[in-house]
Amino acid sequence: MKILIEKADIITMETPEAVIKKGVIAINGGRISHVGEQGTLPADFTAEKVIDGTGMMALPGFVNCHTHAAMTLFRGFADDLPLMQWLEEKIWPLEAGLQKEDIYWGTLLACAEMIRSGTTTFADMYFHMGQAARAVEEAGLRASLSRGMIGTAPGVGAGELPPLEYSVEFARRWHGAAGGRITVMLGPHAPYTCPPDFMRRVIKAAHDFGLGIHIHLAETAGEVEDMKRRYGKTPVQLMDQLGLFELPVLAAHCVHLEEKDIEILASKKVGIAHNPQSNMKLASGIAPVAKLVAAGAVVGLGTDGAASNNNLDMLEEMRTAALLQKVATGNPVALPAFDALAMATVNGAKALGLGEEVGLLKPGYRADIILVSMQKPHLCPRHDLVAHLVYSAQGADVETVLVDGRVLMEKRKLLTIDEEEVMSQAEKRAQRLVNRPK
Amino acid sequence: MKILIEKADIITMETPEAVIKKGVIAINGGRISHVGEQGTLPADFTAEKVIDGTGMMALPGFVNCHTHAAMTLFRGFADDLPLMQWLEEKIWPLEAGLQKEDIYWGTLLACAEMIRSGTTTFADMYFHMGQAARAVEEAGLRASLSRGMIGTAPGVGAGELPPLEYSVEFARRWHGAAGGRITVMLGPHAPYTCPPDFMRRVIKAAHDFGLGIHIHLAETAGEVEDMKRRYGKTPVQLMDQLGLFELPVLAAHCVHLEEKDIEILASKKVGIAHNPQSNMKLASGIAPVAKLVAAGAVVGLGTDGAASNNNLDMLEEMRTAALLQKVATGNPVALPAFDALAMATVNGAKALGLGEEVGLLKPGYRADIILVSMQKPHLCPRHDLVAHLVYSAQGADVETVLVDGRVLMEKRKLLTIDEEEVMSQAEKRAQRLVNRPK
Repeated sequence: MKILIEKADIITMETPEAVIKKGVIAINGGRISHVGEQGTLPADFTAEKVIDGTGMMALPGFVNCHTHAAMTLFRGFADDLPLMQWLEEKIWPLEAGLQKEDIYWGTLLACAEMIRSGTTTFADMYFHMGQAARAVEEAGLRASLSRGMIGTAPGVGAGELPPLEYSVEFARRWHGAAGGRITVMLGPHAPYTCPPDFMRRVIKAAHDFGLGIHIHLAETAGEVEDMKRRYGKTPVQLMDQLGLFELPVLAAHCVHLEEKDIEILASKKVGIAHNPQSNMKLASGIAPVAKLVAAGAVVGLGTDGAASNNNLDMLEEMRTAALLQKVATGNPVALPAFDALAMATVNGAKALGLGEEVGLLKPGYRADIILVSMQKPHLCPRHDLVAHLVYSAQGADVETVLVDGRVLMEKRKLLTIDEEEVMSQAEKRAQRLVNRPK
Repeated sequence: MKILIEKADIITMETPEAVIKKGVIAINGGRISHVGEQGTLPADFTAEKVIDGTGMMALPGFVNCHTHAAMTLFRGFADDLPLMQWLEEKIWPLEAGLQKEDIYWGTLLACAEMIRSGTTTFADMYFHMGQAARAVEEAGLRASLSRGMIGTAPGVGAGELPPLEYSVEFARRWHGAAGGRITVMLGPHAPYTCPPDFMRRVIKAAHDFGLGIHIHLAETAGEVEDMKRRYGKTPVQLMDQLGLFELPVLAAHCVHLEEKDIEILASKKVGIAHNPQSNMKLASGIAPVAKLVAAGAVVGLGTDGAASNNNLDMLEEMRTAALLQKVATGNPVALPAFDALAMATVNGAKALGLGEEVGLLKPGYRADIILVSMQKPHLCPRHDLVAHLVYSAQGADVETVLVDGRVLMEKRKLLTIDEEEVMSQAEKRAQRLVNRPK
């Protein structure tokens, strides 16, 4: 389908200066075919649908580099608790009661929330990923999906494949599916739950099947100490020694890093998913993002799951990332607005291995585009659109969302998801999980 | 006017447990006359207007304890700069060009934004406060207004009164005006800009005219060092010695505090306005809020001005406050959700000296009430409403706002402000300020 977006202020993300006032974007067959000033539309382009961008900013959709989508079902169930009490008394008992269909509805709820706040791509790690894939296919989002694998406790139910075998089967079925919108990575949970022998099997499978890796890395100080005690190395250095970083890797958190870890992550072009709100809420610490960026690392942004955030709003996450680096470094110039926006878009796409196709408004790129209304008191006056996105905007300012040139939300109305049904199912299933007999 | 709010889940803020499912609130003559379960409405109460709260939370409106409202005109004009460069090259030259009418329109823009995100009371410190008062009177909000006074550089324009004389005249005209919605405090800017002799005059005037004080206190490490070098005391201890804290005081920031400062602030019941986003953005530091609360201090929450935040959204500010204390103390239990919500409502009211009338949903209190929609994917499922407000909600979830029993916004429509006109005026005036000859 040929779509024309006109009269929007276009933030292409190619350079900080690349803002086109009241420009045009042409979309053809799911990809962007033209971006330019008013009046530059090729004469042979005849739009089947025209989207009026008056009073809007157009920019690449957000890339949420790390979440556990179906954990929306646990949103607000257990907050303000010490980490182990949170996991042992609250989250794990609930997860033990999860049914396959819960994952489908919980993921759809996450998709509805993400579309509403301008996310077009997300990286998910959880269980029953076939159900998550089904939800993503229907919702129309782009996603990188991983089955979380605990090497130390496979936890296989009756009739289920062991995690690595499941993951390989899952990849066969879904990698490149939904017109390429769905990609699959292998998801070893973390170095402290996946011993070297298991990691070696995962790395071999990733090479054999041409897959990337999604892993939690150096999230807490305790984890780093534990790994150094057990292996004499930081988690990053241990993974490097095992050859993990010869693969495309998406590493979530990277909070507690030594100088040498930063060098390794930067030189091996590891994709880093920074999750500031989750790291703050669980008191994990503050990732050295300004240092990582200065070292040339590929740093994207993620929300983590809704049990530890408690929403999937990337606008909020950008703001928190920028403000947190400033106060943590004592430098008000740290992580300026454009850099935070780049983390949430183009650099996030790179972290997911999608940097050639996603994250810029540029001919040839996938038409993953959001329109954000500027007609709001909190976005007035219009001194600086990028600053407004990072420091002032909220999720509900996102008006229209396209993925692969398909409109998923128009003027705040979701077109691919029956939101009332999803909220009703999620509420019912969440109550069943909370109230089931212990 | 008699108004009935029915079928809302009511968060009274009296205790963490005080949530009334699908309850009723009766309003009579601007005050709350009844709060209770469904079916408890007094038989003789006949509502002239009924507000359907189905699918909504009802709670006290937010109290923004520290802002510079008209600085909305500078939103996004100068970000990611070192503090002195920001002030000297950007903010002060712009402020030098401010005209009286700019303050009126900038304050109205702030009022529109605050109503839209659930704020019903704010404490403002700026210039040309007669214009700010005019805007507040029209918008229908509650406000505590102060003319900012620089003791070292009065900066009086032709035909203007010196700041203290202006402030006293302003208080005569506006203290208790607009049906009691407007109160006035004296606003000495900060100890480092108001030397002891000037402070003594301000303190005397406050006693003479029965006024409170709104002041910036211990915002940056440099300020504290400077005061210790000049006076051998921290700003808090110097102000204590001058007798400031025998008056009702609202002290903004309080970031850099010694143990003795905390004792003084707590024992003298100084109202503290914590501004986490501004403190992060300007890299000022992290206020010891958990310690202050533990010491029994009265801690409210503020956004600071839109030039250093860059919005006036109290939901966001609550979230940031809660997350920041957790990561700063390394304790995920620090500043739990209810405590953050209390800072944004009842404790903020106490900090402004309005604690007997504002901040709770309780018979006899002013009917300053907001309704927040729960019918959103990011607020589903409904495990914990207070957690949802603090960790998941956004400004646009606020549907309806009442102040003194008058509806200022209903179903997202502003009833007292011509929003299009305000945005148009603000845009025009902001552009004039930026583009005027140097």
